Amino acid sequence: MPDAAAETYSYLGPVGTFTWLALNQVPEAQNKSWRAVNNVGEALDDVVTGRSVAAMIAIENSIEGGVSATQDALASIPGLRITGEYLVPVDFVLVARPGTSLEQVHVVNAHPVAYAQTRRWLERALPEHGHIPASSNVSAAASLLEVEHADAAIAPPGITDHYPLEVLAERLADSEHAVTRFVLVSRTRVLPEPTGADKTSVIAELPVDAPGSLLEMLEQFATRGVNMSLIESRPIGDALGRYRFVIDLDGHIKDERVADAMLGLKRFSPNVIFLGSYPRADRQPVAVPSRYADEVFIEARDWLRGILSGEPDD
Amino acid sequence: MPDAAAETYSYLGPVGTFTWLALNQVPEAQNKSWRAVNNVGEALDDVVTGRSVAAMIAIENSIEGGVSATQDALASIPGLRITGEYLVPVDFVLVARPGTSLEQVHVVNAHPVAYAQTRRWLERALPEHGHIPASSNVSAAASLLEVEHADAAIAPPGITDHYPLEVLAERLADSEHAVTRFVLVSRTRVLPEPTGADKTSVIAELPVDAPGSLLEMLEQFATRGVNMSLIESRPIGDALGRYRFVIDLDGHIKDERVADAMLGLKRFSPNVIFLGSYPRADRQPVAVPSRYADEVFIEARDWLRGILSGEPDD
Amino acid sequence: MPDAAAETYSYLGPVGTFTWLALNQVPEAQNKSWRAVNNVGEALDDVVTGRSVAAMIAIENSIEGGVSATQDALASIPGLRITGEYLVPVDFVLVARPGTSLEQVHVVNAHPVAYAQTRRWLERALPEHGHIPASSNVSAAASLLEVEHADAAIAPPGITDHYPLEVLAERLADSEHAVTRFVLVSRTRVLPEPTGADKTSVIAELPVDAPGSLLEMLEQFATRGVNMSLIESRPIGDALGRYRFVIDLDGHIKDERVADAMLGLKRFSPNVIFLGSYPRADRQPVAVPSRYADEVFIEARDWLRGILSGEPDD
Amino acid sequence: MPDAAAETYSYLGPVGTFTWLALNQVPEAQNKSWRAVNNVGEALDDVVTGRSVAAMIAIENSIEGGVSATQDALASIPGLRITGEYLVPVDFVLVARPGTSLEQVHVVNAHPVAYAQTRRWLERALPEHGHIPASSNVSAAASLLEVEHADAAIAPPGITDHYPLEVLAERLADSEHAVTRFVLVSRTRVLPEPTGADKTSVIAELPVDAPGSLLEMLEQFATRGVNMSLIESRPIGDALGRYRFVIDLDGHIKDERVADAMLGLKRFSPNVIFLGSYPRADRQPVAVPSRYADEVFIEARDWLRGILSGEPDD
Repeated sequence: MPDAAAETYSYLGPVGTFTWLALNQVPEAQNKSWRAVNNVGEALDDVVTGRSVAAMIAIENSIEGGVSATQDALASIPGLRITGEYLVPVDFVLVARPGTSLEQVHVVNAHPVAYAQTRRWLERALPEHGHIPASSNVSAAASLLEVEHADAAIAPPGITDHYPLEVLAERLADSEHAVTRFVLVSRTRVLPEPTGADKTSVIAELPVDAPGSLLEMLEQFATRGVNMSLIESRPIGDALGRYRFVIDLDGHIKDERVADAMLGLKRFSPNVIFLGSYPRADRQPVAVPSRYADEVFIEARDWLRGILSGEPDD
Repeated sequence: MPDAAAETYSYLGPVGTFTWLALNQVPEAQNKSWRAVNNVGEALDDVVTGRSVAAMIAIENSIEGGVSATQDALASIPGLRITGEYLVPVDFVLVARPGTSLEQVHVVNAHPVAYAQTRRWLERALPEHGHIPASSNVSAAASLLEVEHADAAIAPPGITDHYPLEVLAERLADSEHAVTRFVLVSRTRVLPEPTGADKTSVIAELPVDAPGSLLEMLEQFATRGVNMSLIESRPIGDALGRYRFVIDLDGHIKDERVADAMLGLKRFSPNVIFLGSYPRADRQPVAVPSRYADEVFIEARDWLRGILSGEPDD
Repeated sequence: MPDAAAETYSYLGPVGTFTWLALNQVPEAQNKSWRAVNNVGEALDDVVTGRSVAAMIAIENSIEGGVSATQDALASIPGLRITGEYLVPVDFVLVARPGTSLEQVHVVNAHPVAYAQTRRWLERALPEHGHIPASSNVSAAASLLEVEHADAAIAPPGITDHYPLEVLAERLADSEHAVTRFVLVSRTRVLPEPTGADKTSVIAELPVDAPGSLLEMLEQFATRGVNMSLIESRPIGDALGRYRFVIDLDGHIKDERVADAMLGLKRFSPNVIFLGSYPRADRQPVAVPSRYADEVFIEARDWLRGILSGEPDD
Repeated sequence: MPDAAAETYSYLGPVGTFTWLALNQVPEAQNKSWRAVNNVGEALDDVVTGRSVAAMIAIENSIEGGVSATQDALASIPGLRITGEYLVPVDFVLVARPGTSLEQVHVVNAHPVAYAQTRRWLERALPEHGHIPASSNVSAAASLLEVEHADAAIAPPGITDHYPLEVLAERLADSEHAVTRFVLVSRTRVLPEPTGADKTSVIAELPVDAPGSLLEMLEQFATRGVNMSLIESRPIGDALGRYRFVIDLDGHIKDERVADAMLGLKRFSPNVIFLGSYPRADRQPVAVPSRYADEVFIEARDWLRGILSGEPDD
């Protein structure tokens, strides 16, 4: 009998959401059991309790909300690890019951955030429309089939694979280049192998709220040639003005320079959470200046070991 | 005849929202015309076009969304200035039509974000409840008086001042200490006078995406003893991996050390947007180490001027 | 009647020393009165008391000693300014009374430091020689004409212009590339005009003997793109472990980036002595990265002035 | 039969010099063979060739010269190690043949550097004196017993233990607090054990002559809380403007933070020479901020090892 948890992946449901689209990108999740949940908290709870082997959650720029919530959850729930990163373009379509034309659309059902993200298109194409709020992007579409309050709905692309609806218009998102970044979170302790195109995520608190304290933390990365691709401050929440930092680094913790930077960070910060090293979604190799190459670190260690052990210089 | 624009303040409506609560804290806005708008974009548009003299917008930790949108709008709309900062505790009440008891609540109307923020309380107190989404916190409450789909609504405290509803439960927010930070934005060029408890907000791009580039930017603050109370990276949007930073500094641009740091920042960054210097909401005085006091800057300038002009040393 | 002081230059004498060779490189000193003194202290005393308009002193790598003494004197005597830099190659010749051959040399007269600097040549060419110490390089040569204790002397090149002696051997210095750096010191307050190939000399104390304190001082230069060509620690002398730093910077104090670095240094250090900005001896232009060009500083100041004065952005 | 080399210590002779006074402070050198040499080069040559087990040499502020020479020799001769540090106050006495009174002194024999260091006293006490140069401080005194050219000599305190001379005056040095720092140099590979009051000496080249390069080197120390007690730039000699740095650090290479800083330095610098870790002459314990304590480094390594090996967090 297979282990159900080892076979289950949690995601913000229902079928058809952006998070569902992200989970579709995970080869090892195909042909496994997928569990739709209502929010990030539930998804992570599934992982913590062992109900699921992993959860897909939005971590940056999500139009489904939850990003600050995700960062705070990762900071407060121990034992979680990110094992992969996935990008989903933020885009929307306008769908309706078959046979509906654009001219017939008077009332639009939409999640408030999706509504805000497509407002410019709506005001141009349907200046007279009314808005009925939905609790999710998919439920906006699904409700068209249940009640007739609305004539059309804002939904993620691909929604018509799941519901017998028709696309009236595409590319509705106001911002063309928007992308949501998702991560797959599990409780595994096994590090994905370095690929040369990796990312490392950490959350770290500053020791004191003093000028130069953040600078000192960032020097831990700079003096090892480690680039940050993301840094965000988040209030710790126990007192105003106390922040933790959510940081993405280029490289894998098995890279010497990243490992050494992590040592420096650990010594510096009263609280560091290692969230994982994993392949970048864009598979772009990390360029490492030759002076920060693995060999340079190994050579320095050999040199120090020689001095400490009393070997001749040769 | 009074200038209507000079008398109008825009805010995320309707009456009763958290943003409305923030605007209530602004003495100069009392007894003026208030204009309820639908989102941050509309509010800023009112300011840019001159329809309003100022707009209240959420800039950090908002449960009404819009924070990333706010930061991006401030980065892309020229000519805006922050003139004040206001804090509103994030809290919710459960309201119902008069005479309803908690036991009678089966369906709850709530904005999806507010629903997520109070979910823990709802699951404990009303484990069997259903949820109807609303387009805003206030419309959730207001709709109780229009249709009877729902038995109760999640709303901001004070909502019963505006609607004939009754409070069934208070302090529903899952997080006790959450606060939303609002700012008042206008087009004025006049700087509020320094109060000794000020904040300066800027947005700056990094010159290149290289290790140490952010560090170099932060050194502009550290070498002048200027503390950062907030730093967030935001994708610039023209290409993946290019970030701008939203930064709050302790102190006023009329403080010598802040002015000098702004000079260093301006020289360093290809694009700096000065968003304003304004009194802190908490009125907590900024502690300045004596070596960064105004006199130290003035004395150094006098010393340099003496050298450049060929004056004797003493 | 001309002002005698305005016409007099002090140097470590007598005629023929390396310092005298350096003074020969100064166009404005030609056809003026030159005053030979016995050491750096006397030379600077002449300047301080007004007996001389300027003094030539060795400041780096001198084989005639006095470099630490020079640095300490410049740190403790107020009101001095360096106005020019001059390089003299460290080289020696072996001279003797006319008619003497190398084989006839048994005893060599030499200043102990010059003797140490030419020891390798002496041991090779004259393995059996004896050494009589002299009080200076020139007196070693001059004494050949007075007493016959020694058969030859170690002296600076050009000595035969001043004494009827013959050169027995040239290029005696053990180190081929050694150069002594001299500076011309006066009490003028007038800064030499920038030439694009300038140097600025300062002496600065650290505020506290703490890790990172020197680093913080050097950041004043690095954050303005100012390169250091020299840094030396010198004990302050009032307590063990307290140091001042003798620093040469590339560029002129009238260069914006150097002026701004000097402001930062002045604010940081409890005691800064500006020793002068003057043309480099090697006339090599200072390469300035475009981001630290004068225009960048001026533009930033204009931008700040606009903000402070309340001008519109454009 | 004892190993002669293991029993021999080289020093700048003859008996009675400041270097000899320093060697007297070395317990393990007592009752061994001492070899007087003429300069630093000879002393180090004795060590390199194995003629001596160790050599005492001046490394900072010597009035007997040789400091730059010492630093350059340590940079260019491989395989040397400093094992101890010794301080000798710079002071002089005036000595004469027994029976001579101060009034009878007309001509003074003195090494030129000692003469310069006592000139103020001489001009006050013996305004009419003449000066005969000597090749060393001790030979100045010794020659009084051989020839009668001079009436008195400038010599180190204690000279009368070795020569039948009388002290006419004491405390002649112009500077009261001057101290010469000596180091004992050997070829041992064995590190002295940490005492809690140690010093580590290194010489390191900068990778490129660019603004910020020195800063980057010093960050290797600052980010590990390692204080520098000495830093001096020395021209490398192969080209103008290329410098190496002679650096003394507080702490022992067996201290975690110093070892880690040495790793960083080794990775950064194209050429690092480890000169040794040894007890400070003043025996003053090194204060280490708790965040840089050994335990902090060990804990961070354990934490990293746990992550790399896939262990659970706790």
